[in-house]
Amino acid sequence: MSRRERLKLIVVSNRGPVSYARDADGERVVRRGGGGLATALRSLVAYHDVTWIASAMTDEDRAVAAEHDGAFEDVGRDGAAYDLRLVAHDAQEYDWFYNVVSNPVLWFLQHYLWDLVQQPNVDHALHHAWSEGYVPVNRGFAEAVTEELDRQPADAVFFHDYHLYLAPRFVREARPDVRLAHFVHVPWPEADYWHVLPLELRRAIHDGLLASDSVGFHTRRWRRNFMRSAEDIVGASCDWTRESLGYEGRRISVAATPISVEPAEFDELAASEAVLDAGRALEARRPEKVILRVDRTDPSKNIVRGFRAYELYLEAHAEMHRCVVLRALLDPSRQEIPQYAEYIAAIQREARRVNARFQQEGWMPIELSVDDDFPQSVAAYKDYDVLLVNAIFDGLNLVAKEAPLVNERNGVLILSENAGAHEELGDWALTVNPFDVSAQAEAIHAALTMPEAERQSRIHAIRSWVREHDLAAWVDEQVAALDPGHAPLRR
Amino acid sequence: MSRRERLKLIVVSNRGPVSYARDADGERVVRRGGGGLATALRSLVAYHDVTWIASAMTDEDRAVAAEHDGAFEDVGRDGAAYDLRLVAHDAQEYDWFYNVVSNPVLWFLQHYLWDLVQQPNVDHALHHAWSEGYVPVNRGFAEAVTEELDRQPADAVFFHDYHLYLAPRFVREARPDVRLAHFVHVPWPEADYWHVLPLELRRAIHDGLLASDSVGFHTRRWRRNFMRSAEDIVGASCDWTRESLGYEGRRISVAATPISVEPAEFDELAASEAVLDAGRALEARRPEKVILRVDRTDPSKNIVRGFRAYELYLEAHAEMHRCVVLRALLDPSRQEIPQYAEYIAAIQREARRVNARFQQEGWMPIELSVDDDFPQSVAAYKDYDVLLVNAIFDGLNLVAKEAPLVNERNGVLILSENAGAHEELGDWALTVNPFDVSAQAEAIHAALTMPEAERQSRIHAIRSWVREHDLAAWVDEQVAALDPGHAPLRR
Repeated sequence: MSRRERLKLIVVSNRGPVSYARDADGERVVRRGGGGLATALRSLVAYHDVTWIASAMTDEDRAVAAEHDGAFEDVGRDGAAYDLRLVAHDAQEYDWFYNVVSNPVLWFLQHYLWDLVQQPNVDHALHHAWSEGYVPVNRGFAEAVTEELDRQPADAVFFHDYHLYLAPRFVREARPDVRLAHFVHVPWPEADYWHVLPLELRRAIHDGLLASDSVGFHTRRWRRNFMRSAEDIVGASCDWTRESLGYEGRRISVAATPISVEPAEFDELAASEAVLDAGRALEARRPEKVILRVDRTDPSKNIVRGFRAYELYLEAHAEMHRCVVLRALLDPSRQEIPQYAEYIAAIQREARRVNARFQQEGWMPIELSVDDDFPQSVAAYKDYDVLLVNAIFDGLNLVAKEAPLVNERNGVLILSENAGAHEELGDWALTVNPFDVSAQAEAIHAALTMPEAERQSRIHAIRSWVREHDLAAWVDEQVAALDPGHAPLRR
Repeated sequence: MSRRERLKLIVVSNRGPVSYARDADGERVVRRGGGGLATALRSLVAYHDVTWIASAMTDEDRAVAAEHDGAFEDVGRDGAAYDLRLVAHDAQEYDWFYNVVSNPVLWFLQHYLWDLVQQPNVDHALHHAWSEGYVPVNRGFAEAVTEELDRQPADAVFFHDYHLYLAPRFVREARPDVRLAHFVHVPWPEADYWHVLPLELRRAIHDGLLASDSVGFHTRRWRRNFMRSAEDIVGASCDWTRESLGYEGRRISVAATPISVEPAEFDELAASEAVLDAGRALEARRPEKVILRVDRTDPSKNIVRGFRAYELYLEAHAEMHRCVVLRALLDPSRQEIPQYAEYIAAIQREARRVNARFQQEGWMPIELSVDDDFPQSVAAYKDYDVLLVNAIFDGLNLVAKEAPLVNERNGVLILSENAGAHEELGDWALTVNPFDVSAQAEAIHAALTMPEAERQSRIHAIRSWVREHDLAAWVDEQVAALDPGHAPLRR
């Protein structure tokens, strides 16, 4: 179907497209989030009647929510109007939901980040945060959905990500006939790893998702893992031919549709004054070759091992000393979670160690920037010779799609086999195992010595793929899957 | 088939049934190993013509190997004769094979023990230890097998465990028609976790195993994981109905046959002087209730979390202070591997912390013994009220089968859902999630307050199961699977 068939949709995500605050003069100001999901769903808003339900996350969000009984109209950056409903959860429940269950536990579990010998200790605090935080917040979302459905029927409800695994079940109980879809933006681990959670929790998560009519993932690999774990943990039956699961007498389609970026947005950004300014600053301190990584400081991104791999490369290639820099532009992330604070410390320690070992007058082998500076990141996208994406596990990894779009040096992509984007871009990247630091060192050497013609053909292929499989195409696929009259498209 | 049909078998395992040393007078002495596998295969030797190929592990083993050209006759504890062939590997190759690849890497991988954010760093040292250690030692085993086959044809070759994943492939290349079987005694992790190893290593492991005609595991769960990972990693085709894999035009049967114990051996042991002596010593310092754990000090055994769970129990049940002890009888294991040395330190620290918190004049809540003392373990088997087996992951766990056989107090088994034995004994145990310390604390309380009649009926059921499904039955199943004239039995 085309996006011209206008649908009435309810989108539900924890973080919404806007957030409210007060400025220095006490005036209410709106911040339009650059978050991946908000960007991704912008074009949905442009072509359909959307009510977006999200958490009130700031004090001012709560004030806005209190001023409205239900949804209110907002006009997005592109001038398209949609209805926004901010749900003001109980603050204590939200803290348990967000800071105990969703981010430390579910995120860690879904990226295989636990040191199982020592962590986690599932204790009363986690059981309690689940039953008194994750469950009621999901119930709160479900109630907001059913209230919106009462106000006006919708063609479909579209839930997003690991914060909202139970909400489809609660909506299904109240509205057996409404069409529900869920998209999971993170990796789906295999059944054994779900055993880190007690039986009732891992069952509830699968059961909650399976209350949807369709569940989407970025890759065939995560889809396969989900179908198998749904079979193992709640006894769903896999139909591999129809790419669906049977559960409670219903058929749930399970799709693999990788999200993407808006190429036009990056074309514009690349030519913007802020990016050109940042580019001049980077240019001024540029040696012959630049290896770039752009990441949040998330343990899943594998930043420390990247530094070790680069160290092995420098060890083997003294001829490149003074000629190369590893530019690590890192956005500080989730510092309220101890493992994240510790991980930044580990990153800084490792960078200092490698720099101390190899630095010379006027040359620092690692240029580390821990800062939220998007124009600088885009400027760096234009300027790299090698882009290193070596994530331990990653749902997709948008950097691997964004950076080649605007790169001006035929830069080579080194890509982890465990990043979701590898299913699409692997043929044109140098594939690395994220745990194999010696292979990553060799890939850096191979990338820096690759003939121009090969570099060019690889990056052109990546660009064509991303331009063809852009964000609009992904949104179209999602809408097609939501439309009750159409069988979902599948890859 | 019955074990009376005498077969000519070659058994291959890294550790053999005997080991040689020199005593104080310089005389050669033979030590007959109590290792699980050696015990398990003893009855094989009693009923069939067996040539057993194993590594020469001591200096004296090497001297014995050098005195013989190939195999020589040995007479086992039961008086049955078999041929033994000790393979004297290159010492440096063996060190890489054993201390770099097999025990730290493969064991850690197969029990999900890595802290993936930090470990492992697959580097040149590991690649080198693989190609110059694991590969040539497996090739050495394969050459010993083909030499034995040249000497005398065999009905089948039976490989054991994670040390020998490549040997079947090397034998298959040299002898396309010989019947090969492999039994894996450890858990089989799912495909994502195999990605910790570089592509060529994880492929070689699957390809090596699939050169066998049959592959055996202790549980349906490990079998399922193997069938799926063989599909994902080397493109084998799963036939779930026939419980087999198609690979290279051959059909490989994949069986789930849990190993067991010899009940008669434990009946005898329980009445032995050494055990009775140890029992009197334990009795002298016994409070009202005893919780027992008997384990190697292996991180997979989850000893630290067990102490935390017990701490939570003591916290909630002040009425039981002075009335209960957690007796942890731990056999020190693999102390040449740093993670194991660190784990013993963590165990001691945690025990000291819990004891410091709760101890009173004349009462120490945890009784920790780090010592290899099998008579003491059997004496403790007889005397527990609760047996705690909370392994993170465990191929089977023989303690869960051994201890109930001789227990005299209708002791209750608390059993991890991730221990292989749970597939057989789960119905009669209190099941716990190994990561859930609060649930383990509750299980301790439930076990200590369980009515006598229920405790009795549970332990009787476990005993009947183990006596019926004993070691002899397991050996029969293995032999049936080895016999070229018979389709393998399957659970």
